[in-house]
Amino acid sequence: MRRHVVAFGGGHGLAASLSALRLVTEHVTAIVTVADDGGSSGRLRREYDVLPPGDLRMALAALCDDSEWGHLWRDVLQHRFGGGGELAGHALGNLLIVGLWDLLGDTVGGLDLVGRLLGARGRVLPMAAVPLTITAEVEGVDAAFPDAVTHVQGQAAVATTPGRVLSVRLDPSEPPASPEALTAVAEADWVVLGPGSWYTSVMPHLLVPQLEQALRDTPALRILTLNLEMHTSETQGYSAVQHLESLRAHAPDVNIDVVLADPQVVDDHDDLSMHARRLGAELVVLPVARPDDPGKHDPLRLAAAYRDIIG
Amino acid sequence: MRRHVVAFGGGHGLAASLSALRLVTEHVTAIVTVADDGGSSGRLRREYDVLPPGDLRMALAALCDDSEWGHLWRDVLQHRFGGGGELAGHALGNLLIVGLWDLLGDTVGGLDLVGRLLGARGRVLPMAAVPLTITAEVEGVDAAFPDAVTHVQGQAAVATTPGRVLSVRLDPSEPPASPEALTAVAEADWVVLGPGSWYTSVMPHLLVPQLEQALRDTPALRILTLNLEMHTSETQGYSAVQHLESLRAHAPDVNIDVVLADPQVVDDHDDLSMHARRLGAELVVLPVARPDDPGKHDPLRLAAAYRDIIG
Repeated sequence: MRRHVVAFGGGHGLAASLSALRLVTEHVTAIVTVADDGGSSGRLRREYDVLPPGDLRMALAALCDDSEWGHLWRDVLQHRFGGGGELAGHALGNLLIVGLWDLLGDTVGGLDLVGRLLGARGRVLPMAAVPLTITAEVEGVDAAFPDAVTHVQGQAAVATTPGRVLSVRLDPSEPPASPEALTAVAEADWVVLGPGSWYTSVMPHLLVPQLEQALRDTPALRILTLNLEMHTSETQGYSAVQHLESLRAHAPDVNIDVVLADPQVVDDHDDLSMHARRLGAELVVLPVARPDDPGKHDPLRLAAAYRDIIG
Repeated sequence: MRRHVVAFGGGHGLAASLSALRLVTEHVTAIVTVADDGGSSGRLRREYDVLPPGDLRMALAALCDDSEWGHLWRDVLQHRFGGGGELAGHALGNLLIVGLWDLLGDTVGGLDLVGRLLGARGRVLPMAAVPLTITAEVEGVDAAFPDAVTHVQGQAAVATTPGRVLSVRLDPSEPPASPEALTAVAEADWVVLGPGSWYTSVMPHLLVPQLEQALRDTPALRILTLNLEMHTSETQGYSAVQHLESLRAHAPDVNIDVVLADPQVVDDHDDLSMHARRLGAELVVLPVARPDDPGKHDPLRLAAAYRDIIG
C-alpha cells in the first residue's frame, strides 16, 4: 500500500506505532516530540543546545530495514555505553545524530542520512525546529495535600511525577514547526496520534500552533490510538474517557476521525463511543495488546487494526 | 593491479601511506599500532580497557570509497565533538568503533563493519590483540643533563619528549599478534613499513614477536619508506642513516628489500645506499613530497613511486 501515513508521538509509544505502520504501508513519516530533557538526550541538549535526539533515534530504529544490515545498525544506534565514566548512559545513536548535525548544520538532513544508513522505510522529522520545555500543572504532588496544584517543569520530571497531570504547556509557547513536518501533514492520507505517554509524547504536538493548524487543515483522516495502560505515571487515575477529554481541552478545534481502543481499556462502550463522537470520531475496539504482555502493543495486531481502518 | 600490499604504521604516516597505496592496488591491508594512550583514544582505553581506536579510525578513513557516500562517512568518523563537556575532543568514529566492539564482542568484525560503511578499499587490522604500552629510553630529557638517560612511558609522552629516543620496548613484551594480521603478512606480495613517527608508529610492529617472525617468513618484498621530516620530536638529531641503524637495532633479523627516500633526506647517497644494503635493501630515491608542504608526502607522487617499485 502506498498510502502516506504520518505518525505523531515520541518514545516507546511512537516506536510501537511505527513498528505496526511499516507493515501496512511503505510510506510512513514520523513526527517526533523534541522536549526530552532527561538522560543522554538531556545531557546532549544542555551541552550543545540541540534538539534532544533520543526520541528521533528510537523512531529511526523502529523504521530500519528488515535485513541483517538494517538490524545491525539499529542495534548500533540503540547501543548504550556502560561503565561509570563520561560516556556512561549515552546511546551511540544519539552521539551519531548530534555529530551529524554539527557536521552538516542541517537537522533534517542529518536524520535523513541516518535513515539511509538504516535503509529506513519512511522518514523521521522533529515536530519543532527548536528544543522545547514542557511545564505541567500537576495535582497532588505532595500526598499530604492531594488537591494542591503545582507546576512541574521538564519532560523527565513530568513523566515521573507522583501527582496527576492536569495540563501541559510548551516553552517557547509558539515554537516554529519543522517545515518538512507541515508538508508531510498536508500531504498525508492518514495521521495517527498515540499511543504514548499522554502529556509528554502525545499532547505536545497539539500545542505547536503551526502543527495544530496543519492537523486541522489536512485532508487526511485522523486516528487516535489509546494507550493500553491508562493508569501509569502521568495519567494515573485517568480513564479512557478522561484521555479524550484532555485531548479536547488541549486542542478544542482538532477533530478526530477514528478512536482505536483495545477492549481492556473500554469500561463502558457506549460512554466511550459518545465521547469519541464529541471529537468527531467513530470508536473502533480491536484487540491490539500482546497476549504475553498486555501493557504493550502487539505490532502485528496493531498493524492488522490499522489495515482494517485504513482499508 | 591485484597485488596484495600490507602497510604497517599508525597515525598520519599510515594515512599517507594508505592514501597512496589505494591508488596503486585494490588489495590493501593496514596493520595498525595499538599503543596510543593520549587524547580521545587514551580516554576510551582507560574507561573500557579496549584497543585505542584512533589510529584504526584514521586508517579506515584513508581507505574510504571515493564517492559522496564514502567521503561523507569519512568526515563523520573524523568529526570531533567541540565544547568543554564530557564529549569534548572525542572523535565520533572512535565512539562508533568502541560501541561496535562492545556490541559485537569482536574487534576485527567491528572494524570490518566500519569498513563496509565507508565502502573501504581494503582492510584495517590491529597489530596486536591487546592494548600496549610503549616505554622509551630517552637521552637528554632535561637539557641541563644532555647525556642522562631516562625512561619515558606512554606513547603520547614518548611522541612529544624533548629528549632523544634511543630505543623503545612494549609492555606486555610479547603481546599476541592479531591472527588476521599474521595471515595478511603471510599472504602479502609487498609489505610497506613507514612513513610515520619512528618510535611510536613504525618500530612497535617489529617488537611484537609473532609479527616480527611473520615479517621474516613472508615471501613478500619489504619496502621501508623514510620520513620527510627526519628531525622532528622523537627523532630529533637523527639522520636517515640513523633511522636505518635504529631499525637494525630493534629488529636485527628483519631484512628490507627497498628503502624509499625523498631526495631532501639524502645527505650522502653512497653512505645511505651502503646502510640500506646492510638491511638487504636497494636504495630508491624519488621525489615523494608535496611541493607546497615538503614535510608531507604527496599521495600521488608516493603512489607513483610505489607503482614504479611494485611494477
